[in-house]
Amino acid sequence: MAHYFLGIDGGGTKTQAAICDESGRVLGMGLGGASGIDSVGADAATVSIGAAVAAARTNAGLPDVPFAAVFLGMAGVVSEADRDIVRRVAQRLRLGDAIHVDHDIRIALAGGLSGRPGIALIAGTGSSCFGMNAAGKRWQAGGWGHLISDEGSSYWFGWNAIRLAAGSGDGRWQTALYAPVMRRLGIEDVAELHQRLYTQGISKAEIAGFAPLVMEAAADGDILALALIRQGVHEMALMVKAVAHNLGWADAPCEVTLTGGLWRAGEVVLTPFRAVLAEMLPQARIVMPELPPVIGACLLALQAGGVIVDAIVRRQINSSHKG
Amino acid sequence: MAHYFLGIDGGGTKTQAAICDESGRVLGMGLGGASGIDSVGADAATVSIGAAVAAARTNAGLPDVPFAAVFLGMAGVVSEADRDIVRRVAQRLRLGDAIHVDHDIRIALAGGLSGRPGIALIAGTGSSCFGMNAAGKRWQAGGWGHLISDEGSSYWFGWNAIRLAAGSGDGRWQTALYAPVMRRLGIEDVAELHQRLYTQGISKAEIAGFAPLVMEAAADGDILALALIRQGVHEMALMVKAVAHNLGWADAPCEVTLTGGLWRAGEVVLTPFRAVLAEMLPQARIVMPELPPVIGACLLALQAGGVIVDAIVRRQINSSHKG
Repeated sequence: MAHYFLGIDGGGTKTQAAICDESGRVLGMGLGGASGIDSVGADAATVSIGAAVAAARTNAGLPDVPFAAVFLGMAGVVSEADRDIVRRVAQRLRLGDAIHVDHDIRIALAGGLSGRPGIALIAGTGSSCFGMNAAGKRWQAGGWGHLISDEGSSYWFGWNAIRLAAGSGDGRWQTALYAPVMRRLGIEDVAELHQRLYTQGISKAEIAGFAPLVMEAAADGDILALALIRQGVHEMALMVKAVAHNLGWADAPCEVTLTGGLWRAGEVVLTPFRAVLAEMLPQARIVMPELPPVIGACLLALQAGGVIVDAIVRRQINSSHKG
Repeated sequence: MAHYFLGIDGGGTKTQAAICDESGRVLGMGLGGASGIDSVGADAATVSIGAAVAAARTNAGLPDVPFAAVFLGMAGVVSEADRDIVRRVAQRLRLGDAIHVDHDIRIALAGGLSGRPGIALIAGTGSSCFGMNAAGKRWQAGGWGHLISDEGSSYWFGWNAIRLAAGSGDGRWQTALYAPVMRRLGIEDVAELHQRLYTQGISKAEIAGFAPLVMEAAADGDILALALIRQGVHEMALMVKAVAHNLGWADAPCEVTLTGGLWRAGEVVLTPFRAVLAEMLPQARIVMPELPPVIGACLLALQAGGVIVDAIVRRQINSSHKG
């Protein structure tokens, strides 16, 4: 009897499922609604994951049999209690007996490096750096959330954009960010800023939406925007360095995969990031993600189910997941 | 018939009232509960201001007659709509016909410099810089709130203390702040930080309470704490410079009064602040507050009521307000 493996990427806005067989061939993928436990709760997560799995089964032409192993990479899962909630969700959905749960950075790393040990640097709305070495030792740097951390994230660039615009409006310094930030906030000048931010209110996601203004101003040569990017990539390189040093790669070669929406800004952040990382950790090799996180979850399900993920399996996954 | 003048300092935790006569003699002071419109609303503000005024009248031995002029310096008052709310409160309390309302930085400036033109730099939970020149022109720099600004405030030092501790816990850098910050948060190590900050939650005031840890670590020679203080005082000096330049004191002498709880840390912040301000704005003279904000409000009530606040009146206020 054939064995099937399920990978889940559960996020704050959507859930992805992918099914592969033991050769690594991806048979089908499916999409569901949000399943981040923090944001939607266990019941809604059950519905979303169930929908994504059902769609993947249909696409794979698979009957409703349990999987040999399941790996769920879930946003917002940080504690053992969180993992328990997700395990119970998987039990309610009768996904199988071998259920493995970890945070979504883990599957991003597995996908980004096709299962090889290394480091994942995430810069989306938030930022975080996570690594795992061949011995299974893990380390995280950054990722302490928007309140005190998230250096280099879109949120971080966004609030700094508003901060720099405010200081330009009140005469502390000058930046071309002023006009576009005021326009995006929908206000005439800095005098209306207080009302806009605190009475009307502004969300974390809205603030993150200001990050591209920094990239545009930097591309136009704005000195403060360029300095902010230098600071952001420096902070992120520090995270990578901390993870590398703690996993035994202080001097040994290691791979670093870059995931998250911020990197879509392209060379305006990639070039300075490469430069500062080359200085701090010259032996590190930057890798753009080879596989998406949900396929990383499949790969971890395979490994958890006892399949040796060798070059042949990797090639199989790689050639089949885009199909 | 004698004329009496009323000054009010309305804050987020308490309200102070002071009554003086036209010679500047402070006759009585009183205390009430919170009256910051943002935090408690108009009805509670009416009760708190009413209580403070009643206590001041009793202490002054004054009957319930209207005042010749009233000046209310109120936390959180930034717009004309806010001022209207406070004016209506004053009308309900029948304080008099000549009611003047402004934000609390205005009375801090008036008190700090005994009514002379100049600049007030506030560093309490939040930070802000406000100035007014002899022609009545006003300028503000900073003070855009904890979300994007408040550089150099206790909130700013507090969240940076937690941020630095987090980076020390995950191996990005080293600081002696780690142990005291974890202890104050009531957690064993940085792995519990996420839960503590986001699930349990932490208030703005709690975060501001971490500022003294930075001062203590700096006094013990911690490099990162010292660098943070240098950065904070630099940011605050930039605010003062922006205000000075906008009020015609780019090269002319001006006075800067320092108010707010942060300065109670003493020389650990004062010495570096003096150094950086001397570099940016060498002609500025730093003045520790001569009179408390509520007496500044009295002084502004006198001026609004047509009394010329000359050296004799100033001396009278100065010698009587501590009585």
